[in-house]
Amino acid sequence: MAKKSTKGPAGNMVIGQSGGPTVVINQSLVGAVLEAQRHRKTLKRIYGARHGVEGVLEQDLIDLTKERESNLEKVAVTPSAALGSVRKKPTEEECRAMFEVLRAHDVRYFFYIGGNDSAETANIVHEVAKAGDYDLRVFHIPKTIDNDLIGTDHCPGFGSAAKFVAQAFMGDDLDNRSLKGIKINVVMGRHAGFLTAAAALGRARPDSGPHLIYVPEVAFDEAKFVADVKAVYAKHGRCIVAASEGIADAEGQAIASKFQQGVDSHGNVQLSGTGALGDYLTKVIKDGLEAGVRVRSDTYGYLQRSFCGVWSEVDAAEAREVGRRAVRAALAGETGETGETSGTSGTSGTSGTISLVRAKEGPYKIKYKVNPLSVVAKHTTRLPKKFLNEEGNDVTKAFLEYAAPLVGKLPKVGFLKGGAVARKNG
Amino acid sequence: MAKKSTKGPAGNMVIGQSGGPTVVINQSLVGAVLEAQRHRKTLKRIYGARHGVEGVLEQDLIDLTKERESNLEKVAVTPSAALGSVRKKPTEEECRAMFEVLRAHDVRYFFYIGGNDSAETANIVHEVAKAGDYDLRVFHIPKTIDNDLIGTDHCPGFGSAAKFVAQAFMGDDLDNRSLKGIKINVVMGRHAGFLTAAAALGRARPDSGPHLIYVPEVAFDEAKFVADVKAVYAKHGRCIVAASEGIADAEGQAIASKFQQGVDSHGNVQLSGTGALGDYLTKVIKDGLEAGVRVRSDTYGYLQRSFCGVWSEVDAAEAREVGRRAVRAALAGETGETGETSGTSGTSGTSGTISLVRAKEGPYKIKYKVNPLSVVAKHTTRLPKKFLNEEGNDVTKAFLEYAAPLVGKLPKVGFLKGGAVARKNG
Repeated sequence: MAKKSTKGPAGNMVIGQSGGPTVVINQSLVGAVLEAQRHRKTLKRIYGARHGVEGVLEQDLIDLTKERESNLEKVAVTPSAALGSVRKKPTEEECRAMFEVLRAHDVRYFFYIGGNDSAETANIVHEVAKAGDYDLRVFHIPKTIDNDLIGTDHCPGFGSAAKFVAQAFMGDDLDNRSLKGIKINVVMGRHAGFLTAAAALGRARPDSGPHLIYVPEVAFDEAKFVADVKAVYAKHGRCIVAASEGIADAEGQAIASKFQQGVDSHGNVQLSGTGALGDYLTKVIKDGLEAGVRVRSDTYGYLQRSFCGVWSEVDAAEAREVGRRAVRAALAGETGETGETSGTSGTSGTSGTISLVRAKEGPYKIKYKVNPLSVVAKHTTRLPKKFLNEEGNDVTKAFLEYAAPLVGKLPKVGFLKGGAVARKNG
Repeated sequence: MAKKSTKGPAGNMVIGQSGGPTVVINQSLVGAVLEAQRHRKTLKRIYGARHGVEGVLEQDLIDLTKERESNLEKVAVTPSAALGSVRKKPTEEECRAMFEVLRAHDVRYFFYIGGNDSAETANIVHEVAKAGDYDLRVFHIPKTIDNDLIGTDHCPGFGSAAKFVAQAFMGDDLDNRSLKGIKINVVMGRHAGFLTAAAALGRARPDSGPHLIYVPEVAFDEAKFVADVKAVYAKHGRCIVAASEGIADAEGQAIASKFQQGVDSHGNVQLSGTGALGDYLTKVIKDGLEAGVRVRSDTYGYLQRSFCGVWSEVDAAEAREVGRRAVRAALAGETGETGETSGTSGTSGTSGTISLVRAKEGPYKIKYKVNPLSVVAKHTTRLPKKFLNEEGNDVTKAFLEYAAPLVGKLPKVGFLKGGAVARKNG
């Protein structure tokens, strides 16, 4: 199916960042801005919206037209959203208001870096522009540590967060070998267990932790959890558990909601920014095992998406590239919409998201593709069955093969090889 | 005061690791073993004790005499104790039993890597040997992320943990700029606030967090805490707090003990491996501020001492060096004891700890010195007054100058410079 392609109108562009930041979300911003700066004949001014849609609504824009490359390169390696981010999902009315602001500023290109909610926002803004017969080219640039977007092999941001999680578990496994006990680490992920599954990437030896992995995709059963931990503890004299913050029981009720009051502005129980789930799981194990066993928990929290100085090179490069590709696609008039579904894209603007397609065979390689916004906007994905073992408490080799190239090289660790010294009678 | 110096007897050596592991504690092990391997005429066999004093007591020793340098170099960059660690503080009777094991294995050199408790253990073992007129050379090799040992400028292990904390706060500050709110991060440190103070090392801008720092050295007052946070929030629209796990009220009662049941095997309330203090401080702020303000906490937990792949180069080199120096001092018969206090060291073995002395002027430079075990064994130190501001909620420039060279280079971050775009009427 050939995509429509029409040269873009001259005008200004706005780019914004949305949702939970990542360590490489600025790579996408910088990729887009540097590419845009190469097309000044068409892209007259390059504006950044402060705190995403809020910045558009409130006309809180900054001018990046002449932002220097040397400074942009510093921003690129800086974690978190340099423009500021936002958790707001605008109403249709607000999307219309946004469109009016964009039109007032002669904006013809709107780029929104974020997850599926951001894609939906972008889609609505695009529809409003279309209805007003205004040629606005709207592209979503994918980003999420949850790795839960549809129509893409994986999501920029995931690889770096996964690397942090893998290195954290590598260190924790070594720590736990030194001072034995049961250790529970809670990893981000409300509905998708990809990031928690990444805990397995740093296993250095057959007996390395995490020994048990619990994700939201598998119903969490406390009795099974205790039995699992007991079995590992009996075998290794220690046990490391990776648990998603979003683990839920067979009825789909989040474990965290069982002991926590209050919900956030989206009606969700608060999962991050609290150690409550880890402490609860500690109690479950302490109650279920003999007294005296050392049980501890850590909740990795915001470190996973913000820790300064650790990122995946592959992830950083891909995050840069999706930003660059979005600008090029918008300028070229590429669109995710096929001729069948949108005969009007030539006159009322194009839209899309950049997705990553992995080579089916041979070494890891990515091609970029423009997908319709509607693909990514509506739903999210979860860990497929083939990535989980039958018992639902570990990942498969297929997952490790999928995730390893996204994370890249992990630190090497070593172990002493010296043999036992024969006993002597004193 | 000239130190006594006598050549050591031929025999075997044992080395062990103790207490909370660090990211560079294996550097000390490797420094000692590699140095020992160069003196095989005197040091016949090089034994490692598994899990410190437990390994000595139970004769759980491994032979490192021919451990290859290439493997040792892999171990050196591996976090946590490669020999295993232990929290045990042996009784006098157990120290006598340890001595019998050492004598049975013809051990003439005993090295113990750890904090002040480990120094005390080493001291007792040394005294037992002396009483038995057995030439046992006993050296303590300093290690602690708490940085609380006496008689040394700083402690190996601290710089790397401080680097992790600094990078964590750098990232968290950026995250908090993106999505504003109040964020409380709990840092390790039961009695000493050095590691929490290190949160300030990564401040990139005048408005960078942490905006408030609470350490165990300053009485923690909840009302003052709320007022402090309110003031910062009013000024910046956000606030990042660094709080030691060991913060205590004016009576010296740990805040964590106010809501937590149970104590550990040392009679201490459990501080690490739980998010309870962070959650409690979150509640204090939520109750004290207007509704709707986003308040979150993270507890950095064991990541601070074990995270794989982040260490301070200076710290790693110094940790290596104290291990090497301890072996050389033991072989040379250097002793921390002066002629006045120990006339018998020549015949009944020498003992000491390696301390770090910083050049008083000019660029950062360290000399190594042998100190008596008794100096380091009995007490610990805390953040001196000169490192804390008058209000007791921040560090001084003097602290930053003290700590920066120990941590070394931190990641560089960048900020967008673009100016505001003028508003338009839609």
